[in-house]
Amino acid sequence: MKLGTIQTPALILDKARMEANIQRLRTILKDKPVRLRPHLKTCKSIEVAKRLTENSDSPITVSTLAEAEYFLDGGYTDILYAVSITPQKLPRVKALQIKGANITLLLDNLETALNVARIGEELETTFPCLIEIDCDGKRAGLDAEDTDLIPLAQCLHEKAGSSLAGVMTHAGGSYYCKSISEIEAMAEQERACITRAASRIQDHNLPCPVVSMGSTPTVTFAHNFEGITEVRAGVYVFQDMVMEALGVCILSDIAISVLATVISHKKDQNRILIDAGGLALSSDPGKKNTLGHSHFGQVCSEGTCTPYENLWIDSTNQEHGLISLNRTSHSFEDFPIGSRIRILPNHACMTAGAYDGYHVLDGGNTVTAYWERCNRW
Amino acid sequence: MKLGTIQTPALILDKARMEANIQRLRTILKDKPVRLRPHLKTCKSIEVAKRLTENSDSPITVSTLAEAEYFLDGGYTDILYAVSITPQKLPRVKALQIKGANITLLLDNLETALNVARIGEELETTFPCLIEIDCDGKRAGLDAEDTDLIPLAQCLHEKAGSSLAGVMTHAGGSYYCKSISEIEAMAEQERACITRAASRIQDHNLPCPVVSMGSTPTVTFAHNFEGITEVRAGVYVFQDMVMEALGVCILSDIAISVLATVISHKKDQNRILIDAGGLALSSDPGKKNTLGHSHFGQVCSEGTCTPYENLWIDSTNQEHGLISLNRTSHSFEDFPIGSRIRILPNHACMTAGAYDGYHVLDGGNTVTAYWERCNRW
Repeated sequence: MKLGTIQTPALILDKARMEANIQRLRTILKDKPVRLRPHLKTCKSIEVAKRLTENSDSPITVSTLAEAEYFLDGGYTDILYAVSITPQKLPRVKALQIKGANITLLLDNLETALNVARIGEELETTFPCLIEIDCDGKRAGLDAEDTDLIPLAQCLHEKAGSSLAGVMTHAGGSYYCKSISEIEAMAEQERACITRAASRIQDHNLPCPVVSMGSTPTVTFAHNFEGITEVRAGVYVFQDMVMEALGVCILSDIAISVLATVISHKKDQNRILIDAGGLALSSDPGKKNTLGHSHFGQVCSEGTCTPYENLWIDSTNQEHGLISLNRTSHSFEDFPIGSRIRILPNHACMTAGAYDGYHVLDGGNTVTAYWERCNRW
Repeated sequence: MKLGTIQTPALILDKARMEANIQRLRTILKDKPVRLRPHLKTCKSIEVAKRLTENSDSPITVSTLAEAEYFLDGGYTDILYAVSITPQKLPRVKALQIKGANITLLLDNLETALNVARIGEELETTFPCLIEIDCDGKRAGLDAEDTDLIPLAQCLHEKAGSSLAGVMTHAGGSYYCKSISEIEAMAEQERACITRAASRIQDHNLPCPVVSMGSTPTVTFAHNFEGITEVRAGVYVFQDMVMEALGVCILSDIAISVLATVISHKKDQNRILIDAGGLALSSDPGKKNTLGHSHFGQVCSEGTCTPYENLWIDSTNQEHGLISLNRTSHSFEDFPIGSRIRILPNHACMTAGAYDGYHVLDGGNTVTAYWERCNRW
């Protein structure tokens, strides 16, 4: 099928770009003493997962139980569900265990640990849990020095309904770094923090087999993985405008794009309208562009997905995207009504979430497959 | 089923609030000389549509061809597809006509009109088209005084493959009004603009049977519908935080909410974390809250959906929502880990778009139905 026959808006996946992104991180980690547990919250696709992993014995990370169920059906059994568990979800976790999943949960507080252990006993199972550690104050987790850490670890270890699988952290702060050297420093901060938490647990004669860190920026630029057993990264598989703004990738690495059609010219306002709006692109504002403005994606050519200089989606309505021609040398003649463009997303995870699947572009303008996604919860 | 048994995150629809919203606009329009063509882009649900309309002969508005196909399957035949058409979508429109749809298209330029007429002839059909008029410079459409208007109208009227159905405008500018009197003025601006375009067409002895205006704010507060044949409104069925900020509704009118679970307390940062993030709430920043801050929804109690003063979703990650307790008298004890809240969305259309359907709450805490949505394109 030719790209030109796909109706808009649609999500396009450039297979060669994706494979290069996968290979790039493999090369970075090749001689490092850590295993990669890719985060499949970005792709939510079994076909992408197959390319991200060696085989279905490979470890994976997910962000929803729907993903866990979907990837288990696809053969993956070593699954980390990396959002704090709530007790109400445990019967679904037990069902995954019965179907063969070796699933690890996440939590950061004693109340949840006690509930998980209690329900584990009630359901006649054991729930392996990682303790979430906060390395940068951006989201969840205990501080590495928190006095609650050891009682929490002891609880998970001692109760029959739970087991202590180790510790994990996520340096979401890396998304706010201003330079590669800041990302490098954040990676070392992340490593130092999680290994300190692991040491404290081990100093109390408690097990800590997993010491997990990760974010695409920190895993890409970390120099030192001492004490780390595994790393997680997700968005690297597609990359996006946020990663480009951080210096983690370049525009031509970005493997997904939204295909859209020019539907109107507003000549008095020097802007064009397309049939991809907030639902098709997501409303995630990402990072400011090179001119200091918020935007909703980089405008590129349809065929080769080549970026047009200073051309972004400036605003969106539900089904409309507006592109100003004010800051560019391009004119209306370059974008006839009915012509098509592709848009590199700000945040690949959020934009891809708007679609049931990917139209897979495999060389030139040929769409060779449609790969389904597993959305929702 | 009890609300307490629904897994989080989930989309909850309060049926009584929805029915009151529907009735309120009916009452407003009761003695007005216009018919209502509700915009189903907000609900995307046949069960909601049945309550919005008198019967399946009633006129409806949609924003995607997927909606048109879905609502035609549900019995609705009088359909306005209110996003500028692209020629590539016309075979799907023809298929809708064959299945019995009386579908009207939208466009604002001669290139598209010529293409629509040509393809109409090729497909041996006639595509009725409204001309989109721009009443506030916010999105698409010709100015009412544009010199292209009459040639465009003539083209649609004269070609065999197209017909001239009339004119329509959408006062998206009403979303930026600062007071009810500004909305009232915007409604009159919208009316004056679209009736002027209609008059110009009629002055050239061309037909203009439909003169359509609409947005929830302007339809709610318009005093004068002279010259208008039909009005469109969508979000009024659910209302949302944007409508509340505009004064179009009050918080207790908002009929949809996201059910979420408290998953962690960050005591050093005085904030709680929930299991609803950017995917569950959307990243639409809406309007600033009463303290002048951006947010991603109003936090409410689980059972009665009563708003907590000064408590909003302050930020989101993909699957996490963060709520600061800094500006409220509430403390961690009010939100135990594992307890649940409901969140009133900024933009109902965007938040609902994240779900395959609604858990319908019908009195108290009883969920009596699950109503599916028609997402995608």
